Amino acid sequence: MDFTGLSAFPLSPLRDERLDETAYVKLIERLRVAGVDSIGALGSTGCYPYFSRTERANALRLATEHSGAVSVIAGIGALRTRDVLWLAEDAQKAGVSAVLLAPVSYHGLTEEEVFSLFAAVTRELSVPLCVYDNPGTTHFTFSDELLLRIAQLPNIGSIKIPPISAPERAARLRPRIPQSITLGISGDASAVDGLSAGCGVWYSVLGGLFPQAALAISHAAQAGDFTRARAHSDALQPLWDICKRYGGSLRVMATAAELLGLAGASCLPAPLQTLTGDARREVADVIEQLRLA
Amino acid sequence: MDFTGLSAFPLSPLRDERLDETAYVKLIERLRVAGVDSIGALGSTGCYPYFSRTERANALRLATEHSGAVSVIAGIGALRTRDVLWLAEDAQKAGVSAVLLAPVSYHGLTEEEVFSLFAAVTRELSVPLCVYDNPGTTHFTFSDELLLRIAQLPNIGSIKIPPISAPERAARLRPRIPQSITLGISGDASAVDGLSAGCGVWYSVLGGLFPQAALAISHAAQAGDFTRARAHSDALQPLWDICKRYGGSLRVMATAAELLGLAGASCLPAPLQTLTGDARREVADVIEQLRLA
Repeated sequence: MDFTGLSAFPLSPLRDERLDETAYVKLIERLRVAGVDSIGALGSTGCYPYFSRTERANALRLATEHSGAVSVIAGIGALRTRDVLWLAEDAQKAGVSAVLLAPVSYHGLTEEEVFSLFAAVTRELSVPLCVYDNPGTTHFTFSDELLLRIAQLPNIGSIKIPPISAPERAARLRPRIPQSITLGISGDASAVDGLSAGCGVWYSVLGGLFPQAALAISHAAQAGDFTRARAHSDALQPLWDICKRYGGSLRVMATAAELLGLAGASCLPAPLQTLTGDARREVADVIEQLRLA
Repeated sequence: MDFTGLSAFPLSPLRDERLDETAYVKLIERLRVAGVDSIGALGSTGCYPYFSRTERANALRLATEHSGAVSVIAGIGALRTRDVLWLAEDAQKAGVSAVLLAPVSYHGLTEEEVFSLFAAVTRELSVPLCVYDNPGTTHFTFSDELLLRIAQLPNIGSIKIPPISAPERAARLRPRIPQSITLGISGDASAVDGLSAGCGVWYSVLGGLFPQAALAISHAAQAGDFTRARAHSDALQPLWDICKRYGGSLRVMATAAELLGLAGASCLPAPLQTLTGDARREVADVIEQLRLA
């Protein structure tokens, strides 16, 4: 598969603390119909580490069954190498086109430990892997040197970098990694910065719930029209603002899904909670103001 | 049970990526024979979040079967409230005397979410709970206000505070929480600071592998002789130094266990690794120098 264009990361909505399969399938179908370039099932937005192995395999089967011709990239992160290997096997059996791996930690990891994880997993894969650098959730920070070492392993297809210093990082890494590996930007508010600095793909939370809004940005960037891409992104500033104010995009997007009837009440795994009161009203206002519904 | 004295936290050594039951039982028996006041099974040092529900229930059964009259406190932390409730039930079925709960996170938690977790769990318990404040691994920082709110919930027996500013924190909290709740210090190098500032219990990694060395400190502190307690602690400075140098006590203690034949090779769950080369030799030197074996 190609790691290019818009890779959309849907929520995994719960109902009574179990995956709401009906809501999940609807989210996947929405992305297929919109024509995103790939679907990131069980990414951070899809709360992958909160589900059991069985629940994850089930979610991935639903995703591949309903994604049509759109490729599915599956999050396979876990604390243990053993579990990651099992999850990689399950994901491939479920028919995914690629896997996404972040070095999830409880005890902080060393660079050597993270390298050993990626070496063990890529050795066993039949599909390409996207390296997921997400220090906000994993509390591990990749050095450029480590990413370059990992880029030499087999089956590496893409590297998903976080928004902090993304343009500088992309500019540094791009000439030093094989052309077959794309760089991808995550952090929706910084997407245009990353795409204009050499990232070939946008790993997008926005795209998981509002694919049309994300595709407008992605299509403009792919056409090389970064002025238009930036104008589309700037128009969404009220959304970027509330995501920042409420600790990231997860709670805002999950709240938006509830407000739009795309998820039932309390759609995040407890103890995580969607927004209430004034914060919830702000999300509703932004959806209306930006005509995101 | 009383949360007082020395609570010793053993490793959960692996062999071929499964719990090494023989080695684990030996560590538990070592603590029983030494006469520690309680055993913290599946604490952070026991790598609780790296094991499946079945593996955790099994480890707790082994701990209670081999701990004699010594109370077992079981770590029940997990990302989801649902899983924590299951683990609490399993732990009680395994016969533990208390549970230990840290707000494990992937997506960062809000204070309200953490309170809701403790409220849900304490409502269901038949044994007391120790609140585990460990920002280094959970990436959640408790405010004093949140700890005071949680202290009002039923079944709270102790609060385990981290070493940073522990004396000031203990002095602030002690007069404001019920006398039935003890404060406990973790972070071995800061134990005497905590014990002399009103902590009634030491949650100790050192004690999990070297109970005699930890009991010398604990007994002196319990007798009110903090000068002697500090002298015992100061004598261990080379050990505190290597723990600091190698990113915390886990890898040092696991390496020490391997060197002493108390665990087989590669006793940590991959991708975590014990120390090699010069670092490993330093651990061996410190063990010999301090006559810890």
